[in-house]
Amino acid sequence: MRAVIPFDARSPNQRLSAVLDSDERRAFAIAMLRDILDTMEPTRFDPQVIATATLPDSVSVPHTIDDRSLDAVITAEIEANAPLAVVMADLPLLTPDTLARLRNTTSDVVLAPGRGGGTNAMMVRDAAFETDYHGASIRDHREIARERGLSVGELDSFRLGTDVDEPADLLDVLLHSNGRSAEWLEAAGFRLTESAGRPTVTRAGDSD
Amino acid sequence: MRAVIPFDARSPNQRLSAVLDSDERRAFAIAMLRDILDTMEPTRFDPQVIATATLPDSVSVPHTIDDRSLDAVITAEIEANAPLAVVMADLPLLTPDTLARLRNTTSDVVLAPGRGGGTNAMMVRDAAFETDYHGASIRDHREIARERGLSVGELDSFRLGTDVDEPADLLDVLLHSNGRSAEWLEAAGFRLTESAGRPTVTRAGDSD
Repeated sequence: MRAVIPFDARSPNQRLSAVLDSDERRAFAIAMLRDILDTMEPTRFDPQVIATATLPDSVSVPHTIDDRSLDAVITAEIEANAPLAVVMADLPLLTPDTLARLRNTTSDVVLAPGRGGGTNAMMVRDAAFETDYHGASIRDHREIARERGLSVGELDSFRLGTDVDEPADLLDVLLHSNGRSAEWLEAAGFRLTESAGRPTVTRAGDSD
Repeated sequence: MRAVIPFDARSPNQRLSAVLDSDERRAFAIAMLRDILDTMEPTRFDPQVIATATLPDSVSVPHTIDDRSLDAVITAEIEANAPLAVVMADLPLLTPDTLARLRNTTSDVVLAPGRGGGTNAMMVRDAAFETDYHGASIRDHREIARERGLSVGELDSFRLGTDVDEPADLLDVLLHSNGRSAEWLEAAGFRLTESAGRPTVTRAGDSD
């Protein structure tokens, strides 16, 4: 089963700019992408990374390049290759078990919601579906599927629901993953600490 | 199967104070509690609400009162009544299906993580377990179980993982629930809107 992983090779993880500079954001994004690929390794998914630009040679991840919009890329993939999965590249908590749950669904379209209205992963079994990742995409994707008479399922997963795009999300990576992203954060000095009884993440050398 | 639902009757949802006043926070907390009870209705769980103080007569929810710390209350429950579930009161996205998944686990202790290190629900099948909700509780609960030789499972659920304690969480309630909490928010003027292509929640009458 094909699993498309769209990857922003130009300016990934912009909302982490308060805690990571642009080189670090790119390196961390690659660590998260490798985690997804590692997770797919023992599964029956065949990952296809589609990047917005060529990745540096040092990043030995097979990928194709397509600089169209995310919706144009994914909708063309669905048209040509459904059934397939679409899995975002910033989901370092993902496990083979969670991917197996996604695979073992039966609806025409199965959506895995992310916090804040996003669609972090989907299984699309009917080429009539198309995507609209703008705004509250989970709602729009449900509507598009229903308009086209497709059955809609939900994959209720904390691990698929946890996309990493804000500094607070790094806490979840340290707590729930021991993959490359967590290793990268630890090597960069990020640690789980507690402040007034609440867990938080601090970076060695931070003054606060 | 007993399901203990601890409820803060005094000052619930403090972190929503930027968008709800104290009467509203109490009313919204009761709406969320009722959603949990409604969700348990068709399941094999027998809900036991344990509140920190008496609820007003107008709130016709059966409950017992125990003003000890959360850990003291839950650990005493486990000792006396395991096997049981513990389900937090601020999980309005919960569905009977998700509760059935929790029920159908087999490990001695099954933990449902929340974002930011919390433990939003658990199944405890061995009276040797005790809780420590302070700080990064999901990590501490894993460790306590292992120290006592208990098997540990994880319930990977977006719906159990989404506890509502910050204003941004209201968006997930509006998008993923049609229960009493969502109705309450809508009646109070909260709406899903978009700002620069990102979904957000605004309240009728808000100036920004």
